[in-house]
Amino acid sequence: MFRSVTARAARRVAQPPSVAARRHLHAPLAFDWKDPLGASNLYTEEELAIAETAEDYCQERMLPRVLEAYRNENYDQKILEEMGELGFLGATIKGYGCAGVSSVASGLITRAVERVDSGYRSGMSVQSSLAMGGIEEFGTEEQKEKFLPGMAKGKIVGCFGLTEPNHGSDPGSMESVAKPHPTKKGYYSLSGSKTWITNSPIAEVLLVWAKLQETGKIRGFLVERSKCPPGTLETPKLDNKNGLRASITGMIQMDEVPVAHEMMFPHVEGLRGPFSCLNSARYGIAWGTIGALEDCVARAREYALERKQFKGNPIAKYQLVQKKLADATTDAAYGILAAHQVGRLKDEGKAAPEMISMIKRQNCDRALVNARILQEIFGGNAVSDEYHIGRHVANLFVTQTYEGQSDIHSLILGRAITGVQAFV
Amino acid sequence: MFRSVTARAARRVAQPPSVAARRHLHAPLAFDWKDPLGASNLYTEEELAIAETAEDYCQERMLPRVLEAYRNENYDQKILEEMGELGFLGATIKGYGCAGVSSVASGLITRAVERVDSGYRSGMSVQSSLAMGGIEEFGTEEQKEKFLPGMAKGKIVGCFGLTEPNHGSDPGSMESVAKPHPTKKGYYSLSGSKTWITNSPIAEVLLVWAKLQETGKIRGFLVERSKCPPGTLETPKLDNKNGLRASITGMIQMDEVPVAHEMMFPHVEGLRGPFSCLNSARYGIAWGTIGALEDCVARAREYALERKQFKGNPIAKYQLVQKKLADATTDAAYGILAAHQVGRLKDEGKAAPEMISMIKRQNCDRALVNARILQEIFGGNAVSDEYHIGRHVANLFVTQTYEGQSDIHSLILGRAITGVQAFV
Amino acid sequence: MFRSVTARAARRVAQPPSVAARRHLHAPLAFDWKDPLGASNLYTEEELAIAETAEDYCQERMLPRVLEAYRNENYDQKILEEMGELGFLGATIKGYGCAGVSSVASGLITRAVERVDSGYRSGMSVQSSLAMGGIEEFGTEEQKEKFLPGMAKGKIVGCFGLTEPNHGSDPGSMESVAKPHPTKKGYYSLSGSKTWITNSPIAEVLLVWAKLQETGKIRGFLVERSKCPPGTLETPKLDNKNGLRASITGMIQMDEVPVAHEMMFPHVEGLRGPFSCLNSARYGIAWGTIGALEDCVARAREYALERKQFKGNPIAKYQLVQKKLADATTDAAYGILAAHQVGRLKDEGKAAPEMISMIKRQNCDRALVNARILQEIFGGNAVSDEYHIGRHVANLFVTQTYEGQSDIHSLILGRAITGVQAFV
Amino acid sequence: MFRSVTARAARRVAQPPSVAARRHLHAPLAFDWKDPLGASNLYTEEELAIAETAEDYCQERMLPRVLEAYRNENYDQKILEEMGELGFLGATIKGYGCAGVSSVASGLITRAVERVDSGYRSGMSVQSSLAMGGIEEFGTEEQKEKFLPGMAKGKIVGCFGLTEPNHGSDPGSMESVAKPHPTKKGYYSLSGSKTWITNSPIAEVLLVWAKLQETGKIRGFLVERSKCPPGTLETPKLDNKNGLRASITGMIQMDEVPVAHEMMFPHVEGLRGPFSCLNSARYGIAWGTIGALEDCVARAREYALERKQFKGNPIAKYQLVQKKLADATTDAAYGILAAHQVGRLKDEGKAAPEMISMIKRQNCDRALVNARILQEIFGGNAVSDEYHIGRHVANLFVTQTYEGQSDIHSLILGRAITGVQAFV
Repeated sequence: MFRSVTARAARRVAQPPSVAARRHLHAPLAFDWKDPLGASNLYTEEELAIAETAEDYCQERMLPRVLEAYRNENYDQKILEEMGELGFLGATIKGYGCAGVSSVASGLITRAVERVDSGYRSGMSVQSSLAMGGIEEFGTEEQKEKFLPGMAKGKIVGCFGLTEPNHGSDPGSMESVAKPHPTKKGYYSLSGSKTWITNSPIAEVLLVWAKLQETGKIRGFLVERSKCPPGTLETPKLDNKNGLRASITGMIQMDEVPVAHEMMFPHVEGLRGPFSCLNSARYGIAWGTIGALEDCVARAREYALERKQFKGNPIAKYQLVQKKLADATTDAAYGILAAHQVGRLKDEGKAAPEMISMIKRQNCDRALVNARILQEIFGGNAVSDEYHIGRHVANLFVTQTYEGQSDIHSLILGRAITGVQAFV
Repeated sequence: MFRSVTARAARRVAQPPSVAARRHLHAPLAFDWKDPLGASNLYTEEELAIAETAEDYCQERMLPRVLEAYRNENYDQKILEEMGELGFLGATIKGYGCAGVSSVASGLITRAVERVDSGYRSGMSVQSSLAMGGIEEFGTEEQKEKFLPGMAKGKIVGCFGLTEPNHGSDPGSMESVAKPHPTKKGYYSLSGSKTWITNSPIAEVLLVWAKLQETGKIRGFLVERSKCPPGTLETPKLDNKNGLRASITGMIQMDEVPVAHEMMFPHVEGLRGPFSCLNSARYGIAWGTIGALEDCVARAREYALERKQFKGNPIAKYQLVQKKLADATTDAAYGILAAHQVGRLKDEGKAAPEMISMIKRQNCDRALVNARILQEIFGGNAVSDEYHIGRHVANLFVTQTYEGQSDIHSLILGRAITGVQAFV
Repeated sequence: MFRSVTARAARRVAQPPSVAARRHLHAPLAFDWKDPLGASNLYTEEELAIAETAEDYCQERMLPRVLEAYRNENYDQKILEEMGELGFLGATIKGYGCAGVSSVASGLITRAVERVDSGYRSGMSVQSSLAMGGIEEFGTEEQKEKFLPGMAKGKIVGCFGLTEPNHGSDPGSMESVAKPHPTKKGYYSLSGSKTWITNSPIAEVLLVWAKLQETGKIRGFLVERSKCPPGTLETPKLDNKNGLRASITGMIQMDEVPVAHEMMFPHVEGLRGPFSCLNSARYGIAWGTIGALEDCVARAREYALERKQFKGNPIAKYQLVQKKLADATTDAAYGILAAHQVGRLKDEGKAAPEMISMIKRQNCDRALVNARILQEIFGGNAVSDEYHIGRHVANLFVTQTYEGQSDIHSLILGRAITGVQAFV
Repeated sequence: MFRSVTARAARRVAQPPSVAARRHLHAPLAFDWKDPLGASNLYTEEELAIAETAEDYCQERMLPRVLEAYRNENYDQKILEEMGELGFLGATIKGYGCAGVSSVASGLITRAVERVDSGYRSGMSVQSSLAMGGIEEFGTEEQKEKFLPGMAKGKIVGCFGLTEPNHGSDPGSMESVAKPHPTKKGYYSLSGSKTWITNSPIAEVLLVWAKLQETGKIRGFLVERSKCPPGTLETPKLDNKNGLRASITGMIQMDEVPVAHEMMFPHVEGLRGPFSCLNSARYGIAWGTIGALEDCVARAREYALERKQFKGNPIAKYQLVQKKLADATTDAAYGILAAHQVGRLKDEGKAAPEMISMIKRQNCDRALVNARILQEIFGGNAVSDEYHIGRHVANLFVTQTYEGQSDIHSLILGRAITGVQAFV
């Protein structure tokens, strides 16, 4: 049975106020290194309850699985079902079995998941923002009803095929193509190749972007694996990654895949479609990467307090260590405020895409930079994966390069600031 | 006649909504490089109106004076009176002829002033946050009534004497002392020396912190220049500064200055008094330095669009230039959100001092770093003071070192995060 | 049969000058991105020949093995024998079957090895600088004759046990102890635990530092695995490292290991012994990490020239990419000059330990920083281990933390500069 | 009478070896923070003696004048004559009254001068490298004999006119033009405008680059101020600079200046001429800026040892302070080795222009970055010009922007590394 986050949240709110809920009624706030600028004051009671649910699940259920998953590049697909049960998937969508929460609540869920692992967050983002979000925004009513409820439960896995082997930062040059099917009437024939596609090896519904031959315009197609004739669709897993090893990544190789006309998104042409989906995913990354950074802060702080050197002082007493902690904590606090602000504007329909470029870029960059610096606190011990921080560092590098590499977002911002484009 | 900001703001609000006022009623926001994350959505109508008033005054009246002032280290004292007329001085104070606006409104004023020059902002901060703020928080009713109305008008200039030549980051070791006056009954005798005191050469009322001999505890004294016997008080101007040259800075040299008992703050002892004043000033610096950075962005952007090199392309088309603009714009946008957040918490009584350390440190640091990088866009032309950016760079370095040098705030934060102090 | 590097080099020199040998006879040098500041002009003919031999071996024989080794944390012990055959091991030692080359030649070998992988270099450094170097500097003639020839051939593997689980940056607090053996006369009994010991699981001779109970002073002991009674010595392998996975790392657990008196170093007490060995290893790291960085430059450059985006331009045409390449190339060129300088001073007996701290710290730091930035050039593709750069990044982080974490070297330098220690 | 550096150096060498001269005969070097990597081992006895002469003059004669000069933008022209007396001007030129020393010796002189002030070094560089160097390399024998001896004495001041108001990084687009003179036979008529020309207001001989109308090619012209008819040549001084205030800077405004045909350089066309001169000047900047940085290190170290805070500890005991000193010292040491290496290659005819781009860029950048960080050590006191470091910081920013702004050199290097140009 579906037990949505909001349902659980409602229950919580009905109870006498918990410690967490009461906290922000009383002044003055003591400084809390876990929330240095008092962002919790900005969330509704419901959002706070959702965040707590998500944190509990992630710390209690996901964290114990992550080391093994990461070591062996072994994604546990059941996680999507568990998330589905809690209402995490497509959480901002209204109806279709989705929780219909605010963008800030959705951000808080994302933060909780990425606090454990960016790979787990990637798997969720693809399902929620890219696949479900795309269907919700651009799909027909039939498409929505067919796919969204199962996807919300995590029973149907989705993926998002945009990037091609030769076209990363420049999807407009894609080579995948949809032609009229030579033999099946009412069908297109899709051919082409996509790479670095999270979830592709396990996806049942693949949202694939390809150029419609007759117009040369990019269109979105919902490819159902179970309907593909043998030999037309392959989704080989990509192994030996040096980050995001707890997520599953693959290619999509299409050789005349037949797709029924009604499985094309009807009203969206060009890059507007995929970019809109990406915007939504990027918004989530801005929250998530701060979650990962916060976990690095917490682990580095704990290590610094426990590790003694030179006359038995905890290394937390070193100025050079304190500066690293202060810097990281500050960037995390600033990053959350920015993500929150864009979330609120998003729900009011006021979030410009460049705002999302800004917070995606900055939060990824600062999370990565600070995680690397915090890693230094562990000295030689950092090499052991049991301290977790090396995993965050490796993951965060990948988040910086995908869904718009950092430099590409610099140029998107540069263009918005100057009115001049510099992509050459 | 006193014409407060709020009065003017009230008039504006009564009028049919201006373009600025209407802007945020309509979705979606186009990206605005001057307000990249839509912070203007967070301000009240009154705050927006106050900001506009402040910007108008600063750009129209202050900006034309700044080059000459900076070149010659020549502070125009009339500026304080003009600010007083507009209600900028002690703006958050209720009563005593002060405007009584929100902390956010006060931050917006500060930002507008520092957009022109950090030195002008320093002069205002000292008057408002340090001198008036100190009197308002710790003074007796008589002290308030005596000084605040004239200070709010800018007719009585105040200053704040804490730092001593040998005690910068460590004011607890101060050597200034207040003894019972040897001859005047009901008076203390103050001796000691303070340095880097903004406004001291022109101040009538000097809030001086000194150790009361009988207790060894730090206390606050209001020294009135006009009441000091000849030879007891000197406030020599410090010249040849390499930053903040548009503010006036001096020493306070006290040689048995008689101060009446009723000119001591009655209920505050130790560093709590001066630190509380400093907190308020530091909060303002967090807003102000972002104003200076925003001016650098605007000037660098304009230069980059006008300057043509290599085949007539504006240098705004260079990736290396765009990245500088994107970085600076991002840090400015993040900095404003953080300052706003702390302002709101401040008015709710929820702002921990470490929050202010965090935003003071981060906004100063990021403003400085980015201003320096933006300065590179001007190439060789940056050496001319007419591009203004060199002045901002020099000023911002000073803001990073005063009211808590950046590293000191790192250690304050480090202590709050770890519970361990590292000041050695 | 032993075929030393010098022998091969001698042959080369006898031949008519090769292109490489002639290159630096003719002016002017065209700019060579592989040797931007013409460091090759500083090497002797013999050193150039040794470097070429080493590069050939490493690229042809080691490189093809590294991916598999890294993926599976599987160190191929035969590599030490191959290195032995070429004269790489203990290369600066005179006699005992060692090549007796200059410190610069030894640095060039190290650079060639680490150009492939820092883990392979670690395995070699431990054998050469730490184990053989220690025996050569502090051992008795009998110890030298017993171990060095076999170690030079790579037939006897050595390791170096200094770091303990609770004492990383602060080895003076070690807990390992050597007491008179309770039952075996003429023997000490060693107990204690060492961690993060490269080569320990495969080492036959373990140079272990422990406190002699009777004096409380640190002494060096040569523990032969084959002579240890069962249950006294364990060297469990440490798995799941997130860097240096192509080297083998383990613990040394000693429970009353009997060590004959003549297996103790006779004349060295305290930290002078291990620090002298570490100095030698650190000197090598300064060369090696630049080799790794140079490989990153070469790979990033090649990728940037081959990868096309936006209208078919190679991404090498992007300013943001060129800056990354220029920065990294510069730091590599500077790093080599500094390592060379210290090498020459070392052979003249003029290298102060702080010089080695300086080049170890700086070259590790700059190699790491630049490798990370170059990794960005690969965008999403960086996540695949087949581009090698992710491996270098992960390795270089570890090199920054071992044999003196970067911050510790900062404080060593700070102490040398100021005369004041700040280790707390 | 002319007393060349070499003469004085020769005398020194004849004397029994001084302490300085003997220093590097004895092993082992103790670590010397003023020469951390033992670069003094690389200099000849003559070079060491020259360096000592230069340091003595600069510290004893120039340093006492610099504060006043900088405050008032007042260049003391006698400094050039004093330098001339010591053989500093055009020091590498053979004959014509010049000292004929090595490029390394010349670098050491430059370092000594810029240790005092980058403006003083600029004045010298323009005279030596740009004006005299240009004449020596491209001039006719008559031109050399006419100008070089007087310039070597500092009696004739030269300047170098390349940059135009609208063409900084892109001199190939210059607008200055030389036409056949309408009335004077055998003369060209020069018109156009140059800006940011060091020494122009006091120069007698102005080396001006302009396009020859008949060919469209850039040529070099020696304009003698005393021969210009009234109204044809103006060289207004540019005031209110925010850096290099101890040098004199101006424009060159030419309105049909008549220049005799024999005052044109005969054999050099295009940008090769000015770029060759600039290379030579840039080489000097690479030495000079390290001198400025070394002065910052020395001053910051001294301040840190004298300044006490918190329980009377010198702030040199703070880890955060020590790290700043360690970083700066390292970059200075590396920078000197790189400059030395290029100097040696230069004298062997092996220095590629890109090598000079590399060391100019890197040494300017690192000197600036570190000087700024060292400035933080002075806290609020840094604002006083009497600590000198603020002046260095302001100066070093200018050196980063002139003779090739840092980013431009990045692109020069990027082009050399990739073979692809990215100037747009």
